[in-house]
Amino acid sequence: MRGIFITIEGPEGAGKTTIIQKVAQELEVKGMDVILTREPGGIPISEQIRGIILDSGNLAMDARTEALLYAAARRQHLVEKVIPGLQSGAVVLCDRFIDSSLAYQGYARGLGMDEILSINQFAIQELMPDQTIYFDIDPEIGLKRIETNKGREINRLDLEQLNFHQMVRQGYKQLLQRFPDRIREIDASQPIEQVFLQTMKMVEKLIEENE
Amino acid sequence: MRGIFITIEGPEGAGKTTIIQKVAQELEVKGMDVILTREPGGIPISEQIRGIILDSGNLAMDARTEALLYAAARRQHLVEKVIPGLQSGAVVLCDRFIDSSLAYQGYARGLGMDEILSINQFAIQELMPDQTIYFDIDPEIGLKRIETNKGREINRLDLEQLNFHQMVRQGYKQLLQRFPDRIREIDASQPIEQVFLQTMKMVEKLIEENE
Repeated sequence: MRGIFITIEGPEGAGKTTIIQKVAQELEVKGMDVILTREPGGIPISEQIRGIILDSGNLAMDARTEALLYAAARRQHLVEKVIPGLQSGAVVLCDRFIDSSLAYQGYARGLGMDEILSINQFAIQELMPDQTIYFDIDPEIGLKRIETNKGREINRLDLEQLNFHQMVRQGYKQLLQRFPDRIREIDASQPIEQVFLQTMKMVEKLIEENE
Repeated sequence: MRGIFITIEGPEGAGKTTIIQKVAQELEVKGMDVILTREPGGIPISEQIRGIILDSGNLAMDARTEALLYAAARRQHLVEKVIPGLQSGAVVLCDRFIDSSLAYQGYARGLGMDEILSINQFAIQELMPDQTIYFDIDPEIGLKRIETNKGREINRLDLEQLNFHQMVRQGYKQLLQRFPDRIREIDASQPIEQVFLQTMKMVEKLIEENE
C-alpha cells in the first residue's frame, strides 16, 4: 500500500481534534491527498455497532462484550475506509485507533492490555499505524480545558473521572514504552500553535521518509 | 459454579434441536433444573448484535467483523443466561457454542481455528463447556433431511453448500482430535430414537459424575 497511516491518540482535552484538522488542511494546501477520519467513520455497519455500544438502554452490557464490539467496528472502518485510502496513496489521519482500546479498556478498565491487543490484532491483522502521535497532558489540565469550554466548575463526578483519566494516561505511558518506534509523544500542555507545529513536523518527516 | 454446562454441536440436519428438546424434557421429568438455550438466547444486547449480522443490507460485512460480532453476542449470552443458570445449579443445555465458530468461521470460512479460538477465549474466559456432544452426519444426508422437510429437490446452490458443509464437518473432526476429553461424537445418521438414547446416556453419566 502506497499511503501513510497515522493515528492520533491522547485523552480528552488534549486538543487532538483541533490539531488534526489543521494538519489535514495544511497537507491539502500542499497538494497532498488526505483522508481525515475517526471511528466509526460513517461506515454504516460500524455506526450500527456503535449504536449498540452507546444505547443507554443497554445497561447490562459486559465490558468484554463492549471490547469485542469496538474491535468489530474498528475492523469494518479499517476495511471500508482506511485500507482503500491507503491503497489510493492517501495520508490517512485517524483520530483514535487501537491504542485507545489498549489504554482505556485494557489498562484503565482493567481488562488487560495483552488481551485487548490480541482481539484487536485479529481485527486489524498486520495493519498497525505507520506512526502514532500521542498528545500527553495531565488529565487535570485536560479536563479543566473541557470544563472551561462548558463554562462550569469541576464537580465530584469529574473528580471520579479524573482518577479514571489518570489511569488512561498511565496506560498510554506504558504503550510508549512498549512501542517506542511507532508511538511519538508530544507535550500537549504547550500552547496549541506549538503543539500544531511539532505535529506537522512529525507528519512531514514521515511523509518524506515514505517517498 | 454448581451446574453443568453442556453444548450440542453439528451440522444442519443432524437432529440437534429435536433431540436436545427431548433430553431437556426427560431431565425435567426426573426433577432436574434444566435451562435449554441457544445463542443469542433472547438476550436483548445479543439479539441486537445478531440483527446486525443478519441484516441483509449489510453486504459489505467483512468475515472478521462478523466473527467479532458473534463473539460479542456469545459473551453477553454467557454473562446474562449461561452463568446465572450454572450458578443456580441448573443443567444448561446450549444448542451451538464456541465450536460452531471454530468449525464454520475458523475452518470452513478459512479465518483460522487458532485465531477464532483466541477471540472466543477472550469472550468466554475459562468457561468452556463441561461436555460437548457432536452429532456427526454426512452433510449429503443432513442436507437431504432438511430438503425432504421442505419438500423439494437438491439444486445447484445446495451442492455449493454441500462443499461448504463438508468443510464444516472436517472442522468438527479436527476439534474432536484437539479436545478429545471435552467433545464426544454421536453417529447422527442412526434412527433418531437411537441418537436420543445415546445422548441421554452421555448427559446422565456427566450429571452422575458431577454429584
